[in-house]
Amino acid sequence: MAATSSFYSIVAGVGAGTGRSVALKFAKTYPVALLARTPESYVSVVREINAAGGKAMGVSADVSSEASLEEAFAEIEREFEGKRLAAAIYNVGGRFVRKPFLELTREEYAAGFQANGVGFYLFAQATLPGLLASVPDAPHPPSLIITGATASLRGSATMSSFASGKFALRATGQSLAREFGPQGVHVAHAIIDGVIDIPRTKDWPVNGGAPDGKISPDAIAESYWYLHTQPRSHFTQELDVRPYVERF
Amino acid sequence: MAATSSFYSIVAGVGAGTGRSVALKFAKTYPVALLARTPESYVSVVREINAAGGKAMGVSADVSSEASLEEAFAEIEREFEGKRLAAAIYNVGGRFVRKPFLELTREEYAAGFQANGVGFYLFAQATLPGLLASVPDAPHPPSLIITGATASLRGSATMSSFASGKFALRATGQSLAREFGPQGVHVAHAIIDGVIDIPRTKDWPVNGGAPDGKISPDAIAESYWYLHTQPRSHFTQELDVRPYVERF
Amino acid sequence: MAATSSFYSIVAGVGAGTGRSVALKFAKTYPVALLARTPESYVSVVREINAAGGKAMGVSADVSSEASLEEAFAEIEREFEGKRLAAAIYNVGGRFVRKPFLELTREEYAAGFQANGVGFYLFAQATLPGLLASVPDAPHPPSLIITGATASLRGSATMSSFASGKFALRATGQSLAREFGPQGVHVAHAIIDGVIDIPRTKDWPVNGGAPDGKISPDAIAESYWYLHTQPRSHFTQELDVRPYVERF
Amino acid sequence: MAATSSFYSIVAGVGAGTGRSVALKFAKTYPVALLARTPESYVSVVREINAAGGKAMGVSADVSSEASLEEAFAEIEREFEGKRLAAAIYNVGGRFVRKPFLELTREEYAAGFQANGVGFYLFAQATLPGLLASVPDAPHPPSLIITGATASLRGSATMSSFASGKFALRATGQSLAREFGPQGVHVAHAIIDGVIDIPRTKDWPVNGGAPDGKISPDAIAESYWYLHTQPRSHFTQELDVRPYVERF
Repeated sequence: MAATSSFYSIVAGVGAGTGRSVALKFAKTYPVALLARTPESYVSVVREINAAGGKAMGVSADVSSEASLEEAFAEIEREFEGKRLAAAIYNVGGRFVRKPFLELTREEYAAGFQANGVGFYLFAQATLPGLLASVPDAPHPPSLIITGATASLRGSATMSSFASGKFALRATGQSLAREFGPQGVHVAHAIIDGVIDIPRTKDWPVNGGAPDGKISPDAIAESYWYLHTQPRSHFTQELDVRPYVERF
Repeated sequence: MAATSSFYSIVAGVGAGTGRSVALKFAKTYPVALLARTPESYVSVVREINAAGGKAMGVSADVSSEASLEEAFAEIEREFEGKRLAAAIYNVGGRFVRKPFLELTREEYAAGFQANGVGFYLFAQATLPGLLASVPDAPHPPSLIITGATASLRGSATMSSFASGKFALRATGQSLAREFGPQGVHVAHAIIDGVIDIPRTKDWPVNGGAPDGKISPDAIAESYWYLHTQPRSHFTQELDVRPYVERF
Repeated sequence: MAATSSFYSIVAGVGAGTGRSVALKFAKTYPVALLARTPESYVSVVREINAAGGKAMGVSADVSSEASLEEAFAEIEREFEGKRLAAAIYNVGGRFVRKPFLELTREEYAAGFQANGVGFYLFAQATLPGLLASVPDAPHPPSLIITGATASLRGSATMSSFASGKFALRATGQSLAREFGPQGVHVAHAIIDGVIDIPRTKDWPVNGGAPDGKISPDAIAESYWYLHTQPRSHFTQELDVRPYVERF
Repeated sequence: MAATSSFYSIVAGVGAGTGRSVALKFAKTYPVALLARTPESYVSVVREINAAGGKAMGVSADVSSEASLEEAFAEIEREFEGKRLAAAIYNVGGRFVRKPFLELTREEYAAGFQANGVGFYLFAQATLPGLLASVPDAPHPPSLIITGATASLRGSATMSSFASGKFALRATGQSLAREFGPQGVHVAHAIIDGVIDIPRTKDWPVNGGAPDGKISPDAIAESYWYLHTQPRSHFTQELDVRPYVERF
């Protein structure tokens, strides 16, 4: 764990799964700020990192609220004063609404875009200036890493809310990769195609209950770290991941 | 021109280009309702169709406003009382914002989704019940046809607003195709990859000024009619179109 | 049926399904040459067209044999002397081998490419000069239309032979579209995603036996004709087709 | 460098670029067999690895010749007797033919498939049994890693030979991933989208001569190692890589 680096990282969307693992992984090198809607999502992770000799802070924020996010970033900058941003991870799931289209309210339909479109817009606006500023000195190309899903590539029946949000997120990620890549910032998109192995999915009968039939969130964290440490001559814009037994 | 069919069609997004050509084409078989923000966009097309012996009505509406759209559909139903819906075409461009990401306001970013996400959600909510009801008797499978763009497949630099809206539209179209296709409604998505030949683009130096280097809107209308008349054993979900000289 | 046009068309891969329907459709406008491995595949179609007042000839050929194809084209040119080529359709299925990879012989693996790679290369070499020559005068842009499949986009388990052939065919089609499109020849690729309704598939329990659950070959023929008649300002390079009840 | 592991690895397609870097990287953990057409391609790499305390052997082979490959594998098995296969990397470029389609001979057209279709078929046939046998005990899931290119996704004008080969390779890789993934073998495909920084490309004016404007082959080797070490709950099937300044 590294409490003293002059660079820090931010993970938006921290809970018991990917966000936690990513925070633990990046905390080995950089102090890390954790964003989640409520403290319950991050307090134990913050404690875990700090207890291990790392440095973490948690901030409650609603990523789709400009005011909330502004306040959160002000707090982060106060806490990490003098440090510069090395990596920003957008791992926000958002509300997952799955119902027949004609029963879907406008608000439910837009929830996907609210979390994965507007939320990512605000997060990227808040982090890109810092990432750009770090380009000359950061140990690795400053990175903006995005969590996608099966629904980033496929609009399934009854999934228009989630899929339209994830498609929009992917579009925005591509657009930023093309604009900021040449400036030295690495924008990468991971398609997580499968169920993640977290407490909530413990009893889900995934892939016939095969061992390792759910994606290890620690393995996702390794992926994100690998993406972050790629040199600029070799940026991955997109990769997929799924369990060996997943049908695709 | 057919003023007397017991089925009618709706075209949202009528101006001097695709919408006009599609309205003229569909008016040969069905009465047609034209939606646009302001009467200037549709009055001459309505006049043209009615003068030719067809039947058209124009309605001013903001597709991303629930209230405005509700009012518009009430008016259409009054006017076309007793007729049933055969085809609904969503051809809304929306505001096209192209600027460096860090200069893009939240409202500008969301404008793409507002037009191509929320607007299409509202349009599909308003038309799918009618399309479903027409399945048993309509001469062709009732159709919901969507206008996409190059940006439906690619998030270019400085295009995050438009691309995220078009990606979201495509996701939603796929989702509806998978939900409503098996119920007999044909949901199709056309990727218009090139500049359309309309008065506004007259002087654009496209494809080196090659003859036919811009897409004929009448040809797009033929495509949409072809999609509409496909039998249910053979639905096209997606096709692309571009001028012969377009780079891709 | 049109026996007297000064343009003719060629369909490679004629049997009881798509090839037959396409030949009948194109024969309404152009004399048509039918290619198949053995006369049994084309004699009845040739008879049907000629009996209806059209003009058709059948030629036996192995599309992956240069010598066989050369002979076939010499025969076609003799028969249609003075006519020019308006459309060439490549509808060759090839041998469909589906087995565990480690049981697949080299010859079986290569069979997919033999039919859909080499066969299409030879067919395109034989027809493109004629299509190019017809550009200035043909009633529609001279067309090279290719039959793809689900396997054009997806390499399924145990399908490496067929998928590698169909992927290669799609690659070659894209390459030709980009090279010959700007010269006025329309190269289009159709992804046929579903079982075609032909005598051989009569008892296949497709889509739960739903009515119209298999693709009508006549509808495919309409598609190909639609592609052929598109103006050069509006070329479709790729479209998919599937039954309304097909999962995708 | 690790000369004593009970597992070994194979790299097909070794020269001054990716193959060399991959061999050096994998040699840190496993003895490695290097395949190339002629000794000039591998002797210096073999010497470099052995001098550093690793273990490498070079074998001359033509991957598209069954006899040649059989002999090569027999030699490898003799040399590495008692060791089991942990990773096989297919990095064969093949002959790159770029010319107008109508000037392309059949043999030139088929050269792409010969190298990337048949060659990969033979390589996969030769290595999959060994990879499967290693599943229970290998330190990481046994891996079959494939080098793709821009042309794996796009058939450019005048590139039908290379693109059809790379499309076929990708199809075959997907097919193997779906068949052998559930058995524990990791089949991954990397899309190398850019010019690789090797002696031969030293003076190529790529990306305006920008620093790091060509892909570092060592970075590709890191990618392949990262793919190899992914746990089976989290297999990447496909990733892309390109320089930060590359247009895409």
